[in-house]
Amino acid sequence: MAEAIAIGGPRADRARRVADVLRQQIHAAAYPDGLPAESDLAAEFSVSRNTIREALGILKQEGLIDRGPKVGTHVAQRKYDHRIDSLLGLKETFKHVGEVRNEVRAAMSVVAPPAVAHRLRLAPGEQAVFIERLRYLGDLPLSLDLTYLTREIGTRILEHSLETNDVFALIEQVTGQSLGSASLALEAIPADAHSAATLQVPDGAPVLMLERLTSLDDGTPVDLEYIRMRGDRITMRGNLIRSKP
Amino acid sequence: MAEAIAIGGPRADRARRVADVLRQQIHAAAYPDGLPAESDLAAEFSVSRNTIREALGILKQEGLIDRGPKVGTHVAQRKYDHRIDSLLGLKETFKHVGEVRNEVRAAMSVVAPPAVAHRLRLAPGEQAVFIERLRYLGDLPLSLDLTYLTREIGTRILEHSLETNDVFALIEQVTGQSLGSASLALEAIPADAHSAATLQVPDGAPVLMLERLTSLDDGTPVDLEYIRMRGDRITMRGNLIRSKP
Repeated sequence: MAEAIAIGGPRADRARRVADVLRQQIHAAAYPDGLPAESDLAAEFSVSRNTIREALGILKQEGLIDRGPKVGTHVAQRKYDHRIDSLLGLKETFKHVGEVRNEVRAAMSVVAPPAVAHRLRLAPGEQAVFIERLRYLGDLPLSLDLTYLTREIGTRILEHSLETNDVFALIEQVTGQSLGSASLALEAIPADAHSAATLQVPDGAPVLMLERLTSLDDGTPVDLEYIRMRGDRITMRGNLIRSKP
Repeated sequence: MAEAIAIGGPRADRARRVADVLRQQIHAAAYPDGLPAESDLAAEFSVSRNTIREALGILKQEGLIDRGPKVGTHVAQRKYDHRIDSLLGLKETFKHVGEVRNEVRAAMSVVAPPAVAHRLRLAPGEQAVFIERLRYLGDLPLSLDLTYLTREIGTRILEHSLETNDVFALIEQVTGQSLGSASLALEAIPADAHSAATLQVPDGAPVLMLERLTSLDDGTPVDLEYIRMRGDRITMRGNLIRSKP
């Protein structure tokens, strides 16, 4: 039963196996000076150079690496880790990485759509505050965030700078309470044409779509968000514990 | 400052806001008999019918809904919830939903690539067991799972049926130990051509890419997986707690 990983399927299967390991190596910053030569990778994975080329083609298609005949293979796009198991704003998360800047596209009172009102425990027709921000890390957009806040908290948050502050931090500042917990739903969806243009990615590019309902320490839901994160810039990471079936 | 949600941006922005709320309503099974008429949705969201049509176009592009001039708008593709904050196999997760069937594409001993060996704490050149499964829920693929197991556990797991069992359950069965925890990385990536064909999705379709390293209760890492989940079939859900910056 002892076989090299090379054996057991067509080349495309082997290429996928190699690509998946390399992808994580790239995220772990294992290749700051560029990826090893094809022949070295072929030896490392016990596959042919053609398989390595196909694996690198997969990662190039993802926008993760650049390849050139003279310059070799380099990491094209650094991805940033966002924690899935804690509740931190982007600015807090990336404070050691770079500056998060928010382009505020909307900040206004709205009549909450019924589904939003229900989640925020508002009465039908009750007003909420809606904020839409395009969030940058460095020169490139990272995410497009749509935020519904309960009216009292939202109104007070609008008095602060949304360009430079996380909404999470502002909620805690204006309420004097801590955020408690959040329920989240995470999907991979294709960017529609307008969202793609806004996020500066190709039409249909994969985005991590996060819906998150955040509550204060006392359990009151205050913040419902719909966040599109660029798939090529963000990795969500977390730890979890086995629960019994 | 009191405005309807309609006000504050071009129609594409309003359509996105509507689409995001509707998407979650669809996931919550709010429309088992089809979506409301355009005019009803327009009233509900205080937007024009053109905006509703554009919002529904976004959801159709995602494969979530079907639209027809006579039949109205219906949910095309049910999405299934997978917990991000617990550690359950697919069969356990969907036991009340339907049968999970695994097509075993590979099951063999391999020399672990160095990066895999490192994560599983194997010596360089040490063997591991590699399993590749295409996992179905009902008639359609749900995910393509690449699994590396430490040799002793993996060899014993190969004696059991991989078609009908979760690897997590088999690990606990053959070791007599409970799984303890896992560290995971979750990304949205485009499906490469061969993975797309295998998962029966269009080339470049968004997939949720999960890398997960699972350890026994005693902390020993035993199972390293690279899992591609169809973006149009799976939503990851979880709860999280605020951690202090």
